[in-house]
Amino acid sequence: MISAMFAKRLDAGYRVACYGIKSMSSSPKVAVVLSGSGVYDGTEIHEACATLSHLTREGAEPICYAPDVKQMHVVDHVKGVQSEGENRNVMVESARIARGNIKPLSELKAANVDAVVFPGGFGAAKNLSDFAVNGDSCKLNSEVNHVLKDFHSAKKPIALCCIAPILAAKAIPGVTITLGKTDDGSGKWPHAGAIEAATKMGAKVEMKHVNEASVDKKNLIVTSPAFMYDGKFHEVYDGIGVMIKTLMGLIKK
Amino acid sequence: MISAMFAKRLDAGYRVACYGIKSMSSSPKVAVVLSGSGVYDGTEIHEACATLSHLTREGAEPICYAPDVKQMHVVDHVKGVQSEGENRNVMVESARIARGNIKPLSELKAANVDAVVFPGGFGAAKNLSDFAVNGDSCKLNSEVNHVLKDFHSAKKPIALCCIAPILAAKAIPGVTITLGKTDDGSGKWPHAGAIEAATKMGAKVEMKHVNEASVDKKNLIVTSPAFMYDGKFHEVYDGIGVMIKTLMGLIKK
Repeated sequence: MISAMFAKRLDAGYRVACYGIKSMSSSPKVAVVLSGSGVYDGTEIHEACATLSHLTREGAEPICYAPDVKQMHVVDHVKGVQSEGENRNVMVESARIARGNIKPLSELKAANVDAVVFPGGFGAAKNLSDFAVNGDSCKLNSEVNHVLKDFHSAKKPIALCCIAPILAAKAIPGVTITLGKTDDGSGKWPHAGAIEAATKMGAKVEMKHVNEASVDKKNLIVTSPAFMYDGKFHEVYDGIGVMIKTLMGLIKK
Repeated sequence: MISAMFAKRLDAGYRVACYGIKSMSSSPKVAVVLSGSGVYDGTEIHEACATLSHLTREGAEPICYAPDVKQMHVVDHVKGVQSEGENRNVMVESARIARGNIKPLSELKAANVDAVVFPGGFGAAKNLSDFAVNGDSCKLNSEVNHVLKDFHSAKKPIALCCIAPILAAKAIPGVTITLGKTDDGSGKWPHAGAIEAATKMGAKVEMKHVNEASVDKKNLIVTSPAFMYDGKFHEVYDGIGVMIKTLMGLIKK
């Protein structure tokens, strides 16, 4: 019966069978830290998908992680307003992007993987930090703070895009990042206020276009604007490709 | 204040400002029909993102639609089991993929766009039809049935991937589609049962690999396996690229 086949969707065995990434012992392992699923209260979905696609294209084995905590809030993405009374868990929603294959962020250790990527979306500013509320005086989620410092001290590279580079600005004093550009008259950079905040936090902020990445060679940090630019879907996909390719080049062979 | 900037996320105006696709009057308009957000109870997220990315890459203007109905159920994507007592709306969840820019499926008319795409995921078998429960004796959501027949009679092309081709099998008697391959010994085709069901429904089913598309030139139907194959993220992205490029070639100039 076909219905019996679909009933198997509920089995953990199905989830394992359908997940595209197999253990590839010779491949670099790259952690991807998610913050929910949906631009206004979680991970920007297109940035996460582009990250995973470019990682497998470059021969890496991506491993998804998210903090096992309640979301700051839930946003109705049709109305653009908070869904009152609704609660969702960051890891459970992130698992929608990860096709069920996700681990709690508390389990991520720099010693066990080769690099880490933080896609953007308001989840980085709401669930991985409180930047959306407190701007340059924000605090990071303690596990996020630990992960960034762990990778930095282990000299393993970190990539972040869209608004997520503010996490590096907070955790690693003096880091060089990009958050896109200040208004260049195109009307395509609606989030330029984040640049001022990151500068106040002590970061050196470079102007980069959506198809470029900023590289801090000393701190091994790669950043790219992604949807900080009001771009087309393939422009963001390709820009994240530049970021991932650059990240892979920083992994020690 | 940076916090004031982020408060703007809740304004509809922000959503418009941040949405990457502008009206391009000379570009072909292509509808994308979503069924939620997450492989086990909605649209397969990577397939939807790949669809949107390849559409803008090909110069099309994508316009997202979803039925404004309750999901069949909500699946906890970590545990792989139904979340008891939780209800979500298909259009509201689909808006997470569409970055807030989505319309009710009842508004989609073949007369107003050049083509339509249905990405896969269990949402196609749970929310756009009841195939997950009733197999080859399934019924389609009435709006989905209307859209497929409207595009077919208007001779405007339809693309569907993963499990979504069963929608065309039901609506358009004798259509030629692919649902991937029967088990070829690789263990990479876990959903081959759908092929038997579509054959019972009267479809001609072609065997295709993840990097190929099936084309029914008479009915203007393009299909591709996507995550019917237990593939890597970039393999699915590229396969959907083949499907979208083929679809664009079928649009009348």
